[in-house]
Amino acid sequence: MILSFEEILKKVENEVSALHLNESPISLYTPIQYILSLGGKRIRPALTLMACNIFSEDIEPAIKPALGIEVFHNFTLLHDDLMDQADLRRNQQTVHKKWGANTAILSGDAMLIVAYRLIGETSGKFLKPVLDLFTTTALEICAGQQHDMEFESRSDVEEEEYIEMIRLKTAVLLACSLKTGALVGGASEKDAEILYAYGIHIGLAFQLMDDLLDVYGDMASFGKKIGGDILCNKKTFLLIHAFKAASEDQKKELNDWIHKQDYILEEKIRAFRKIYTDLCIEKITEKKIQYFYELANEYLDQLSVSPERLRVLKSISQLLMNRKS
Amino acid sequence: MILSFEEILKKVENEVSALHLNESPISLYTPIQYILSLGGKRIRPALTLMACNIFSEDIEPAIKPALGIEVFHNFTLLHDDLMDQADLRRNQQTVHKKWGANTAILSGDAMLIVAYRLIGETSGKFLKPVLDLFTTTALEICAGQQHDMEFESRSDVEEEEYIEMIRLKTAVLLACSLKTGALVGGASEKDAEILYAYGIHIGLAFQLMDDLLDVYGDMASFGKKIGGDILCNKKTFLLIHAFKAASEDQKKELNDWIHKQDYILEEKIRAFRKIYTDLCIEKITEKKIQYFYELANEYLDQLSVSPERLRVLKSISQLLMNRKS
Repeated sequence: MILSFEEILKKVENEVSALHLNESPISLYTPIQYILSLGGKRIRPALTLMACNIFSEDIEPAIKPALGIEVFHNFTLLHDDLMDQADLRRNQQTVHKKWGANTAILSGDAMLIVAYRLIGETSGKFLKPVLDLFTTTALEICAGQQHDMEFESRSDVEEEEYIEMIRLKTAVLLACSLKTGALVGGASEKDAEILYAYGIHIGLAFQLMDDLLDVYGDMASFGKKIGGDILCNKKTFLLIHAFKAASEDQKKELNDWIHKQDYILEEKIRAFRKIYTDLCIEKITEKKIQYFYELANEYLDQLSVSPERLRVLKSISQLLMNRKS
Repeated sequence: MILSFEEILKKVENEVSALHLNESPISLYTPIQYILSLGGKRIRPALTLMACNIFSEDIEPAIKPALGIEVFHNFTLLHDDLMDQADLRRNQQTVHKKWGANTAILSGDAMLIVAYRLIGETSGKFLKPVLDLFTTTALEICAGQQHDMEFESRSDVEEEEYIEMIRLKTAVLLACSLKTGALVGGASEKDAEILYAYGIHIGLAFQLMDDLLDVYGDMASFGKKIGGDILCNKKTFLLIHAFKAASEDQKKELNDWIHKQDYILEEKIRAFRKIYTDLCIEKITEKKIQYFYELANEYLDQLSVSPERLRVLKSISQLLMNRKS
């Protein structure tokens, strides 16, 4: 039986709530419980369960590694927020704002270990390949974050570098989530690799969609402030392309805004959005998203399973690509 | 054949040097190579190899987990130095002083993952028990660090709480090092547990010796500044006992020094040392060290191996207990 997305998500939420992290000392574990309780889309563990379900009726073996991946993802948010000095996460105070930097460092470290504890509960012969994939992925994500931080002080980031950065920072974890589910579901190495490649391309499309929503999204449903990337001068796909296509005047205007210290937030966002619109950046980004999305779907067609078993995963990817938030 | 301690240490140094951590991006891995290159006693990986060697002629299976433990130990130093805002580690700049807090956070995270990568290379049937022990130990060490930080703002820390804190922060990793070596050396579960208990008690003795050396050590050979614990008002075994035995006048003097902002470093150290000496704190601490050391050795006698195989480990513990640095 193929579970519906709603059933998968319900399973994930129940399992996240059932994580007993009220260990001692509570001051170490409370911030972990806090960030996990803030919610989020739970897309990664859902992908693991869905991928497992493609190959097996029994999704139980996927639960522990799925939880490990979700805990790991939230660990990266916790430490990234500290490094970015972000005040808010999902409209709530970030951990370092609430408890201080030292707690954020140490509870984050403990959270990474808890993620490994869950990965370590992967059963039997799947432990080794799941653990190895997780470790490789985790190091890639650190590399992605390092690139991202280094891009902040650079004005010459190329599209290819940017795509590689978001591959590392975002796409590999989605791909890892899918491949992990495939492995514990008993997929062949080939099918597992195909799902991994699918995950990479869906992940790239997903992140570019995020870049786009930051500029053109609907604030109420996006869950974070619109224009956040613009205000912190993030070299997104949109800004990189804007600089590439801009006239000298437009370049000057962008650079002036980037270096301005005192300004009205809304005015900066409006100015960026106008330049993006004048340069058709929305279209260029949408085209790139479509490109990665189609590539992703071509991978799915290569899987050695009946199309019926892919229905849920396909509908979810479609949903992700049409999201407003 | 039982390897000598010199042979074990040489093996460890060679293996640490052969860790190929020149991965990309170099800005992420350079701080990891840096802190590993600062040296240190390498006592933990040495214990793993020695413990393995007690039960097996072949120490190869112990090398990867031994390295994982050493990388993990250095990761804790990296993040602890950041949390403690320490400027120096082994007479060199700390990572956050040299590269900033964000690099220290992220390279530390990567280092923890690299430690797991090495643990993950433990072969075959030993992977699961070694991984589980490592994860349990790593979380205990985070708990120990959390307690340690919380003790800073408390003046009522009891001896039992302090012993429990150093058990978590220091002793469990020495015990884990030994048990890991025993496991991959093919020891029985019972022998592995005995070595673990030995490690806990040697670890407690080891940390109390550190507390003592901070006050009475020989600066040149100790490698860190004498009196560091005194200057940062650390609630060591010595200070806890001093407060317990002190007269009202002595308590007042200690408290005055603890709250004083401007003073000559040497004077504070001299004042503490005088009170410690007047109260025979050195004797009390030495007695406690001896107590844990003897308990540790009683465990060794319960192992199901010939005394000959324990010679190296015993001589090293003796050395650790008589060290001046």
